[in-house]
Amino acid sequence: MIHNLTRRGLLVALAIRTACGSVCPTAFAQASADDPLPSWNEGGIKRTILDFVGRVTRESGPDYVPPAERIATSDNDGTLWIEQPVYVQFQFAIDRAKALLPQKPELADKPPFKALLEGNREALAALGEKGMLEILALSHAGMTTDAFNNTVVDWLAQARDARFNRPYTSLAYQPMLELLGYLRRNGFKTFIVSGGGVEFMRVFADGTYGIPPEQVVGSSGVMKFQIESDGTPVLIKEAKVEFVDDGPGKPVGIQRFIGRRPIFAFGNSDGDLEMLQWTAGAPGARFMGLVHHTDAVREWAYDRQSHVGKLDKALDEAQAKGWTVVDMKRDWKRIFPPQDGGGSRALK
Amino acid sequence: MIHNLTRRGLLVALAIRTACGSVCPTAFAQASADDPLPSWNEGGIKRTILDFVGRVTRESGPDYVPPAERIATSDNDGTLWIEQPVYVQFQFAIDRAKALLPQKPELADKPPFKALLEGNREALAALGEKGMLEILALSHAGMTTDAFNNTVVDWLAQARDARFNRPYTSLAYQPMLELLGYLRRNGFKTFIVSGGGVEFMRVFADGTYGIPPEQVVGSSGVMKFQIESDGTPVLIKEAKVEFVDDGPGKPVGIQRFIGRRPIFAFGNSDGDLEMLQWTAGAPGARFMGLVHHTDAVREWAYDRQSHVGKLDKALDEAQAKGWTVVDMKRDWKRIFPPQDGGGSRALK
Repeated sequence: MIHNLTRRGLLVALAIRTACGSVCPTAFAQASADDPLPSWNEGGIKRTILDFVGRVTRESGPDYVPPAERIATSDNDGTLWIEQPVYVQFQFAIDRAKALLPQKPELADKPPFKALLEGNREALAALGEKGMLEILALSHAGMTTDAFNNTVVDWLAQARDARFNRPYTSLAYQPMLELLGYLRRNGFKTFIVSGGGVEFMRVFADGTYGIPPEQVVGSSGVMKFQIESDGTPVLIKEAKVEFVDDGPGKPVGIQRFIGRRPIFAFGNSDGDLEMLQWTAGAPGARFMGLVHHTDAVREWAYDRQSHVGKLDKALDEAQAKGWTVVDMKRDWKRIFPPQDGGGSRALK
Repeated sequence: MIHNLTRRGLLVALAIRTACGSVCPTAFAQASADDPLPSWNEGGIKRTILDFVGRVTRESGPDYVPPAERIATSDNDGTLWIEQPVYVQFQFAIDRAKALLPQKPELADKPPFKALLEGNREALAALGEKGMLEILALSHAGMTTDAFNNTVVDWLAQARDARFNRPYTSLAYQPMLELLGYLRRNGFKTFIVSGGGVEFMRVFADGTYGIPPEQVVGSSGVMKFQIESDGTPVLIKEAKVEFVDDGPGKPVGIQRFIGRRPIFAFGNSDGDLEMLQWTAGAPGARFMGLVHHTDAVREWAYDRQSHVGKLDKALDEAQAKGWTVVDMKRDWKRIFPPQDGGGSRALK
């Protein structure tokens, strides 16, 4: 599915999901009916997932859920793709703000930009997702939604992760891509529910995860509709954060945008706790999952003390309530898709 | 598709869409491959619709649109169901407020409730959709979303339109039900985009229109997540309107909730003008439609002077730009589904 952003968006989306066809490296296992989750090591976690999906799709069983109600929600940063050492969108915001500051000198005194100009990474990290959204809202005020999309498309095409030297969209987690595809093949409707900006995520969510724009729930800024002097209708971004889809905002976002309660939810940090509680808080079969980042060699290891993606209370609650906690090092055979883009084939 | 509201919601949904099976009155024409729109009279409007859908679905043609981009949005009040003499949800709000006022005497002094208690219909009508949303927000503050759903389910089950003496959900427009089904069979994803409250519409949109909760965009109030003393997570409705999805709010709602621009949009009043402008304002094949209420005998006749569903500027712009204007009296063979509920069969 290609969404209707721009021609450039289309080209990037195509570049991102290059099909390798018959010349794909055979070393890379493909999802199959025999093993829908080839990048997951055998063991309790994989069994729990397969068992859950089996139970809710077995029409004669006591846990059957009709397809329309198979709503799966997943956090994005740290759950579907990398979030260290800073959120990808934070890096985008920093790069954009630096590019825009010469044209908007009045921003230099505002707190988040001050930290940015001073190169104060600690102060920046302390701003969290809300600070990131403020930087984005302020630096993009007065821009149309279409123009903003284009900046994201351009940035994603050239930006590289410093440690892995790869485009960010290729740093999605292969096991989670397989899981999303597996859920969809079993009648689930997959949604992203993330603290990230909804307009940022929609640019790549379809090409990277197979999740179309209308199934992305995220934080948003105020927009205003107006007709330009040549008669063109536009939506202008304003300098105000409207909704923060994080922590207790996640169940609110789910109710507002989806209007149904998920039966399956995955997160990785304390910002996902309320989404998992909301998912757990109704009768019937339920799956609550957390990705625990335990692999400093292949990705990153962090939890209770991290500035980004802190996992503390949610880890305690998961352990107390028997939710599924993925140990990245133990449970994932591989972390990222192969660089030739073959990973996107698992989406089908 | 039955959504996961409550067991009572399920029962009402089933009652609403009673299947009549082989004993359906044969006098009621069913949609078929030969005639997907049997309740539309032959003529220019019907041809325009069939022609548009034909063009965007013909893969070899110049106007082809891939299925993922076939987004259709429709207003609800006055476009999909009746809105005179007052919006259905306004009647719900009045009935609810009257029931709740004895328990919440502090509301009696607030302007909308004052008009309500004084039986001042003129003042009430002048409040418009925003006033209605305020009555709802104030009268339902402190209630959980689940409890609110139940009040809507109960009310819809017993309320009757005064003129037609039928449940409101049976006063959907049969030609529009056929149109929604026809669009979906042609790969369109159908959305409601309405000034009405999103939590109100989601209760019946699936059963009445075949539009699931996650494809309903509407006005909303502030909600708050909390864990009750027994550990149950709930969403509590607060006494504040958050987003009014009407007029210039409609393109904003479309961008925020759907994230793609519609290629097909239908409305019936000035509150739909910006949605139609936004739909029209991009290249490629586009369909902009208005229902003009011209039939005082079978339904209602109103336009430029009406308090409810005023159609003035949008009618001028539609005529100037060659948008499609349905003349209800001329173009619709029948208005409502037959009372036995057979109309819902056209949804499939």
